[in-house]
Amino acid sequence: MQEQMIHSLKEVREKQPLVHNITNDVVTNTTANALLAIGASPIMAHAIEEVADMVSITSSLVINTGTLTGSSLQSMLLATETALQLEKPWILDPVGVGATPFRLTGNKQLLANKPSVVRGNASEIKALFTGANEGKGVDSSTSSESTLEFIQEKAREHHLIIAVTGATDYVTDGYDVYKINNGHPMMARVTGTGCTATAIIGAFLAVCDTPLIAAVSGLTCLGIAGELASMDCPGPGSLQLRILDELYLLDRATIEKFEKVSNMRRSCH
Amino acid sequence: MQEQMIHSLKEVREKQPLVHNITNDVVTNTTANALLAIGASPIMAHAIEEVADMVSITSSLVINTGTLTGSSLQSMLLATETALQLEKPWILDPVGVGATPFRLTGNKQLLANKPSVVRGNASEIKALFTGANEGKGVDSSTSSESTLEFIQEKAREHHLIIAVTGATDYVTDGYDVYKINNGHPMMARVTGTGCTATAIIGAFLAVCDTPLIAAVSGLTCLGIAGELASMDCPGPGSLQLRILDELYLLDRATIEKFEKVSNMRRSCH
Amino acid sequence: MQEQMIHSLKEVREKQPLVHNITNDVVTNTTANALLAIGASPIMAHAIEEVADMVSITSSLVINTGTLTGSSLQSMLLATETALQLEKPWILDPVGVGATPFRLTGNKQLLANKPSVVRGNASEIKALFTGANEGKGVDSSTSSESTLEFIQEKAREHHLIIAVTGATDYVTDGYDVYKINNGHPMMARVTGTGCTATAIIGAFLAVCDTPLIAAVSGLTCLGIAGELASMDCPGPGSLQLRILDELYLLDRATIEKFEKVSNMRRSCH
Repeated sequence: MQEQMIHSLKEVREKQPLVHNITNDVVTNTTANALLAIGASPIMAHAIEEVADMVSITSSLVINTGTLTGSSLQSMLLATETALQLEKPWILDPVGVGATPFRLTGNKQLLANKPSVVRGNASEIKALFTGANEGKGVDSSTSSESTLEFIQEKAREHHLIIAVTGATDYVTDGYDVYKINNGHPMMARVTGTGCTATAIIGAFLAVCDTPLIAAVSGLTCLGIAGELASMDCPGPGSLQLRILDELYLLDRATIEKFEKVSNMRRSCH
Repeated sequence: MQEQMIHSLKEVREKQPLVHNITNDVVTNTTANALLAIGASPIMAHAIEEVADMVSITSSLVINTGTLTGSSLQSMLLATETALQLEKPWILDPVGVGATPFRLTGNKQLLANKPSVVRGNASEIKALFTGANEGKGVDSSTSSESTLEFIQEKAREHHLIIAVTGATDYVTDGYDVYKINNGHPMMARVTGTGCTATAIIGAFLAVCDTPLIAAVSGLTCLGIAGELASMDCPGPGSLQLRILDELYLLDRATIEKFEKVSNMRRSCH
Repeated sequence: MQEQMIHSLKEVREKQPLVHNITNDVVTNTTANALLAIGASPIMAHAIEEVADMVSITSSLVINTGTLTGSSLQSMLLATETALQLEKPWILDPVGVGATPFRLTGNKQLLANKPSVVRGNASEIKALFTGANEGKGVDSSTSSESTLEFIQEKAREHHLIIAVTGATDYVTDGYDVYKINNGHPMMARVTGTGCTATAIIGAFLAVCDTPLIAAVSGLTCLGIAGELASMDCPGPGSLQLRILDELYLLDRATIEKFEKVSNMRRSCH
């Protein structure tokens, strides 16, 4: 997997893929900057009048429900239907899906358009796939470990990749389970770190052979960048910008030195 | 008041209250980061479909009219009505209320839903409570001192806390008047510093015994953070992120050393 | 031109002009901060209910189609019509105009309201004035040099200033052509650098004798700030905030030392 990640990063920088984002109001700037820092070319566009056209000229699509509205949901549904028809890879970040019935219903509709990858924290992944409204906020109330059997089952059932992030990240296609031990606790004090992870996976989706490699590569790259950025870091304000610097500086050497990814044996079935 | 502020900060960090924000497009990222930095758990959500549900699961509500639209006003009215019914504390930041008739009318409707605290600069506070449209921008044309009698009168009349910010900040419940001498002039060159003050008061509203303590605590914490961040600071770009670092690092020692709060004798009636 | 630029910067800081922005979701925070850093007073407001009132109390208007929607287009049309009637200067940034038919049509409607200045990269300028939809993203696929004859012709035809930015920037009124060699390649890895250029030109439009001086002054100031900010800069995260610091610190000495502007002989007609 390490060589595949290094190769994927090189591909992102050489091809500078157009990555279309319909994301939340909080992270539009941060995720556009993260995509530019790692070498991709972001486009943020949510108007119902143009999202289908935009999907047709871009390489991958990132959907994030962090500040979902009735009107943005319509744009997201049209964009993801178009992506499905055109066989373009797309990733769903069901931010706060367990918080309100509106978010749950909207995310289930989006899920029906077959994302290549779903990334969320443990609470979000559980809420999305069980349909249980927890009435919780956007931060997780459970650990990523607790979802291991669940995500394998759901990944197989829905034929997609599930990435559950937290202190440790896990990525599965329902069979392999990659455990990623990169990252730093202070990252949870920067808004939209999870959204940035999703956007970067979106960039890798545009160049990788499989969405599994894309998800593992994206989370590992952000995790390493976050780890390096956290060294001697006074607080989350500095961390936010240093992560962008480190994404920009990421290369073969840093990946070889810091990558902590392992493929776990299937833990169920 | 000093011990109450220190206790309140500790409470924010321990309880990590969910703070619901319907705010302007300029500061969504900055205020979410400020809330995370001080220890709260922000949720930004403005869809009419979910704001009532969101109010019911969160601890306090922050309303900011900096980029008000007809549709966001409807969401704000529903959210604040819900907060009033559920007796959840909420704070109003009437950004640019004197700039256009639309903002003035909208803010008056919001005021009718009884915020616990109103925070603005001197021009905004005067425009909101006199109903006079000054045709001014979002920066103040008068000093906070000039409003001292006015804010006491209006705070008593409306049974709420008024916080007027500027070179010096004042907070009153109509009887006590707290004068806060923290902060630094360069903060006025960072967009949304006032909005950040409002959001942080929102976090304290979720844990404090009274909205008066919340408002004084919030403004003092941000003022101290801004002061520490301004030391040897090359410019407003660096300042913006250092304020987040300092909010994260704030503790009993920094509050004891730097806090400059005094309760003034009532100056009228 | 150098003395005019220095004088213009002084005017921005003394008059602190109100600059009204209807811009894209990605850069609202960054451009408000850039305007504050250089000394102007930004107002971001896009509600159809208030944009006409806002234009009437502000000194200049910045229009940016980076995340155009049907509803924001209506607000932009009303605001620019009002600016035209009131003879207030305004600048158009046709972000991604070549990406979709929707953006192209919208930008052409805006162009009919006679902006003082249009600023874009080479692909955007070509798409806007030829009406050819390239189906490209927001980054340019051609160099600014390649547009030199084209922009002179179109500037004369439309009686406006065209500023085309890239590795080298060019500004023309159709007769004079100013070449600006400031800036740094890493600026292209920060989202919205072009949008920031547009906003800063907007500030200069509020105080300069001619839109030509405003456009040259704005691009030169941002170019110098970017150059200074790039020195020993680890990456685009740091660069973004250092540019704000350098805009704040910019003065006669830095302009005299670093300015690289020349007036080229007309290359056609």
